[in-house]
Parts: sequence; structure tokens; C-alpha cells
Amino acid sequence: MASANPNKKFAVIILGGSEPRPDIAKLLPADAVIVAADSGWGNARVLGLTPDVLIGDMDSILPADLAAARRSDATVIEFDADKDATDTELALTHAESIGCTDIVVVSGGGDRLDHVLGIIAALGRESLATCTVTAFIGSARFTVVRAGSPARIDAQVNSLLSIFAVGGPATGVSLHGTKWQLDNATLSPHESRGVSNKVTSSPVVAQVAHGTLIIVQPLAVGNP
Amino acid sequence: MASANPNKKFAVIILGGSEPRPDIAKLLPADAVIVAADSGWGNARVLGLTPDVLIGDMDSILPADLAAARRSDATVIEFDADKDATDTELALTHAESIGCTDIVVVSGGGDRLDHVLGIIAALGRESLATCTVTAFIGSARFTVVRAGSPARIDAQVNSLLSIFAVGGPATGVSLHGTKWQLDNATLSPHESRGVSNKVTSSPVVAQVAHGTLIIVQPLAVGNP
Repeated sequence: MASANPNKKFAVIILGGSEPRPDIAKLLPADAVIVAADSGWGNARVLGLTPDVLIGDMDSILPADLAAARRSDATVIEFDADKDATDTELALTHAESIGCTDIVVVSGGGDRLDHVLGIIAALGRESLATCTVTAFIGSARFTVVRAGSPARIDAQVNSLLSIFAVGGPATGVSLHGTKWQLDNATLSPHESRGVSNKVTSSPVVAQVAHGTLIIVQPLAVGNP
Repeated sequence: MASANPNKKFAVIILGGSEPRPDIAKLLPADAVIVAADSGWGNARVLGLTPDVLIGDMDSILPADLAAARRSDATVIEFDADKDATDTELALTHAESIGCTDIVVVSGGGDRLDHVLGIIAALGRESLATCTVTAFIGSARFTVVRAGSPARIDAQVNSLLSIFAVGGPATGVSLHGTKWQLDNATLSPHESRGVSNKVTSSPVVAQVAHGTLIIVQPLAVGNP
């Protein structure tokens, strides 16, 4: 994913909670601004990354890590704990505000499904519409696909890939490079027929005329 | 959750995949039709339940379990593997078709986030609008809240509770019994500010004028 394209600016956002899989590190862009969300600081260190920014309400970062962050060259941006936005949202807003065009979010996933749903919800927010947004959550890669921006997704042949409409119905959906192809299809956010499609050629190409899609690739079964 | 109300008919749907937590068994209604979805048959047995129905494409159930199901009194309903609907959707459709008014879905959760998202998507489908729908997925309880049907949710004081709009924006949202209350609020499906609210009194009462909500309670931290 690394790129020297001068029109792109990458951000890697490392979230708190469970530790991410260490093998995620090799899938991250090399020339990114590293943003740690709260205890994501420790998770960034687990991945061998040095954060450029620490942001959040600092209610979960270890005191030693917060002290280290303050001594470091990183920019530390602290919010009140009684905020409406989650640390994930604060980090995404910061990445947008500094002009990042390509955002990769990294989370260990873990046992708290409400946290995972909160992360997935935030990936589709409207203010990110001009960015390329991907995420590694637990053992899966998520790619957000929006109207007007077809996605070309690298995937191993025979690996699995699932497609969901999020936030509302998606119309004009096409999906090529998979066993079950879609052409000008409509997907409801309440159907699960997009689960466990099989990749037949790479890159898989997905596009949507109206609405937002999320493509999910389980990393454990042959991806990426 | 058990009830002898003659106007109610309960279904418990046991999904395949990872084994559910054994302590889920005590949270299930006692007088329910037990529907096993494919290898959910084995998971039902783990919970000490005897399925009344086995439904699915039978691509994951153990051959010995399928043979046992065919020898048993259970109704076995087999579908072609190249169907559009997932086993989860087939089981939900079956529960509706036999007149169930209260549906509880049980899944172990596990490592496949695409499966989990498929289950959550299906919980909000329009055809279930007249049913009470809850789910235990991994270590969390999910409650679907629809327009016109306020939900009263049992929860321990100080436990956590998260609220999400799913499938589209939710308007006229109220949430009482929590530290951060909502009154006639609008929730976007792309915001995560509903994550990790704290219960102050039980039952928590949630309602919505337009749209669909999902309430998520992590079972690990004091619920139910």
C-alpha cells in the first residue's frame, strides 16, 4: 500500500483496546502520519510504529505511555472525557483536518462488539467521503466504497469476501472478480446475502451509484 | 425471559460457527421453539437444548449430527447451497412463518466479523417489525428497537450499554435510565457517540419515532 504519490497523504490511526495482530504492520503504508487514539499509543508501539500524534480523552492510556508521549516529539491533543465523540472519531477528524487523503484504521477488535460497531459506523461518516478509508479490525480488512469512487481490492483467488450496504440501501451496486457477481444490484442494509462470496480474480472491483458499501475480507482465510 | 403469556410464541434460533457461551442457556425463554441453523444443531446441544427444527444448506453440520437430526422428531428443512439467503435468514424467515412473536438469536460470535455483521444486518429486517428481536452474539446482548415499540431493557446499574442507529438515520430517539440521556435525538448510522453509556436505573427505556435502533450490552461487564 505504500505510495510516493505526491497527491496522496496517508494517515494510519491506531486505536486502543485489544492489541492488533502484529502481522498487520507489514500491510500499512510506509509514509503515513501515525495517529494514536488514547491507549492506541501502546498498540502502535506493539506494531513498531512511532506515533506523530496522540489524541483522545486519555482515560485508557497507561500513565507511563502518556508521560513518554509528552516527552516525545508527538503532538498531544487532549479532550475532556465527557465528550460526545469517541476517540476513534476524534482521530478520524484530526486526520481529515490535516489533509489526509488515505486513512487506514487499525484495531485489535477484541471482545467488545459495541466498540467494533462504533468503529465500523465511524468509517462511513460523510466527512470522509473524499478520502480512501480502509481498516484492519481484528482478523478482517474493511474497505469503504462510495458513490463515484470504484474500489479495486487486492485479494487472493479463492479467498472470501463479504459486501454490505451500510447506513441505508445501496443501489447500482456492481461487484466483479467474485463467484457471485452483482450488476446494478440493490442491497438492503438488513440483508446478509453478501456474506462469504468467493474471489475468482484480483483485484476485485466494487462500485455503487448511491449509498455506501463496506467490503470485509477475513485475513485468516487467504487474504490479503 | 420465560413467559406463559398465551399471546406470545417464542423462538430461539441457534446459529452455527463458534460455540456460544454456555451461560447463555439460562438467559433463554423456557417455552420456545428451538430452531437450529445448520451446524447450530451442535451448538444447541452444547447449550443443552433439543432442536425442534433444523434448517439450512447443511454445508457445515457434522454428518453424525445430520443423521441424528433425521432420526429425531425434529423437522429438517434443507436448502440448496447456492441460495441467496444465509442460514441465519432462513431460520428467521421460518420463525416468522410459524407465527413466532418473540425471537432470540444465539451465536458464538467468533473471529469472522463478516458473519457477525451479517447476523446484525438480518436482525433489523423489515419482515421482523412485528416481532420482539433480541440476540446473544459472542459476549454481547443485542436488542432491536423499532418505531412504535418502546423497549424496556433489564440491565445492572453501572453496567455499560451502547446504542446505534442501523440501516439509516433514527429520529425521535429517547433513552432513559442511562448517565447520558437522549430526548427526541437524531442518531446517524455513521456516528459512534452512543458507545459505552452507563446504566443508572433498570429497566433502561429506549424508543424511536422513525428508524431502527440496536442496543448492545456487553455481558462481560455486569450484564444482564
